[in-house]
Amino acid sequence: MKNQLPESMKAVRLSNYEKGFNSLECVAMPLPALKEGQVLIQMAAASINPSDLAFMEGNYGFKKKLPVVPGFEGSGTVVAASGPRAVKQLIGKRVACAASFDGDGSWAQYMAVGASYCLPLKKNVDIESGSSILVNPLTAYVLIEKAKKNGHTAIVQTAAAGALGRMIYRLARREKLEVINIVRRSEQIEIMKEIGAEHVLNSSDDRFDRSLLVLAKKLNATAAFDAVGGKMPALLAATMPTGSTITVYGGLSGETGELHPGILIFKQQTIDGFWLSRWMGGQSPKKMAGISSKIQDMLKTELKTDIRARYPLDKFREALEAYSQNMSGGKVLLLPF
Amino acid sequence: MKNQLPESMKAVRLSNYEKGFNSLECVAMPLPALKEGQVLIQMAAASINPSDLAFMEGNYGFKKKLPVVPGFEGSGTVVAASGPRAVKQLIGKRVACAASFDGDGSWAQYMAVGASYCLPLKKNVDIESGSSILVNPLTAYVLIEKAKKNGHTAIVQTAAAGALGRMIYRLARREKLEVINIVRRSEQIEIMKEIGAEHVLNSSDDRFDRSLLVLAKKLNATAAFDAVGGKMPALLAATMPTGSTITVYGGLSGETGELHPGILIFKQQTIDGFWLSRWMGGQSPKKMAGISSKIQDMLKTELKTDIRARYPLDKFREALEAYSQNMSGGKVLLLPF
Repeated sequence: MKNQLPESMKAVRLSNYEKGFNSLECVAMPLPALKEGQVLIQMAAASINPSDLAFMEGNYGFKKKLPVVPGFEGSGTVVAASGPRAVKQLIGKRVACAASFDGDGSWAQYMAVGASYCLPLKKNVDIESGSSILVNPLTAYVLIEKAKKNGHTAIVQTAAAGALGRMIYRLARREKLEVINIVRRSEQIEIMKEIGAEHVLNSSDDRFDRSLLVLAKKLNATAAFDAVGGKMPALLAATMPTGSTITVYGGLSGETGELHPGILIFKQQTIDGFWLSRWMGGQSPKKMAGISSKIQDMLKTELKTDIRARYPLDKFREALEAYSQNMSGGKVLLLPF
Repeated sequence: MKNQLPESMKAVRLSNYEKGFNSLECVAMPLPALKEGQVLIQMAAASINPSDLAFMEGNYGFKKKLPVVPGFEGSGTVVAASGPRAVKQLIGKRVACAASFDGDGSWAQYMAVGASYCLPLKKNVDIESGSSILVNPLTAYVLIEKAKKNGHTAIVQTAAAGALGRMIYRLARREKLEVINIVRRSEQIEIMKEIGAEHVLNSSDDRFDRSLLVLAKKLNATAAFDAVGGKMPALLAATMPTGSTITVYGGLSGETGELHPGILIFKQQTIDGFWLSRWMGGQSPKKMAGISSKIQDMLKTELKTDIRARYPLDKFREALEAYSQNMSGGKVLLLPF
């Protein structure tokens, strides 16, 4: 198949972390060269996530060598492969895919990644929906599995009204976990009520700390998933019942927070972190296939992703603007045209 | 025996957290009344620990109702008991004892505590040595057990040159764990070298972060025990290998520190806390008896405590001064005279 491929491709390219979005361009560049164990994916769609925005501004905790194609996930069809039979067998398959740690990402017409970063799509899953099953649905799935495995019966989550927060809520309820949903703006309370959430707290309220303390105690909510960072992890540790675990998986606030040793010591709280890419790297192909299948079966229910708008690659600026203005309002996709 | 007891006793009493040490007095007060399940201990000796100093200044993370007798540990003889046979059987026994969460402490002629906070002393352990086997030796024992249980083969510890730090070092070496010892002053490097420590880093050195990063990677040191707090837990999380656990058990610096969510997320670090009193409360009497026996067998070797000076209760001010001037230089005991 390889000789049917074009010489060059269209891609969005970031050239400067300090200039961030302003350094983005849509350029023509050579197709990526395949390393051993990698597949080449002809992209069908790529989504925009909060982590993409943080990454392009240099706020994502790790940086790739510049210039680089952004985009942490997408979907497409495998058109070439380098490696053993198991890798070559992916040729022709429709896959959801995550970008590798160090290479170019999904906002391009082609992307090369290790075979373990591709999950074949089921026949009943359309390829656009497949572009958004890793960052959000897989994270929600893994976090809820973690809570169940560790015996928690009620959880606290922040950024609850976002796309991922709503998935975490729905998946938790499916698993009979109680959920305390924390939002940052009063209009987000309605979003949560509409999808049936019973416990919603606004962290901007004066009596938020007290309300959380009382409710977390009543429900014995001993696990928290935080996407906000800043003051939030320490606040959760100070407020939740003794012996709780606070798992940080995002830093939407862009801030750091004060950590008082006394909270860790006298309340016996644990604070840890979750990074999907790292987690994926540690899973067996068999386990990933099983999880992938379960997730795809929930794409029309608990893990539903709304697609709000689609833009061709060279309209990336409009796409980013539309997404930034309402990050909770459904996915904005980049299509490889 | 109870009718042989005096009406009142001598005790050190704290009346104000803001005034701290300046609010201490040596007073005559009634003997404590026994609650169900408690024993009354005629004290033989009480030690001074860093946690006592923090507690009296209101910096210990929890406060008791004032006025209160300070002192978290000591030793003595059980002279009365209230409760079932298992509690009454302690009468006449020489015990090491920890103060209860909410009541008066050990810097007095008598102390009342729950039976589970008493560990009978072996015949070959003198009662003064028994006054210092909980806060330091038991903490060292439990932390090293935790490291072993979680499969770590090398650890990092801060405040390494203190009494507890030296115990942690010796116990870790007995268990074949490699230890990176962090001290805060150059003269403490010698203290560690004298007891045979191979890896000693000074956190005041310019290149400390880099040295720790290189050494922790080389030894694969994936567990840390921190007594300093402040910037240290976050620094350890940023510097130690991915997937490490930082356990905070003290806040000697009296400071809080900035926690960056990215460290938790991208390095998959876990930060938790350890509080001996809480831990003790969760153990079975049988398990505690087993641990107590092991610890007492090491009091002349790995868990050796030097006693530097002894003061009667009414010389508490001199005792505190002597201790504060050199907290690493051996225990200062308060004797009930």
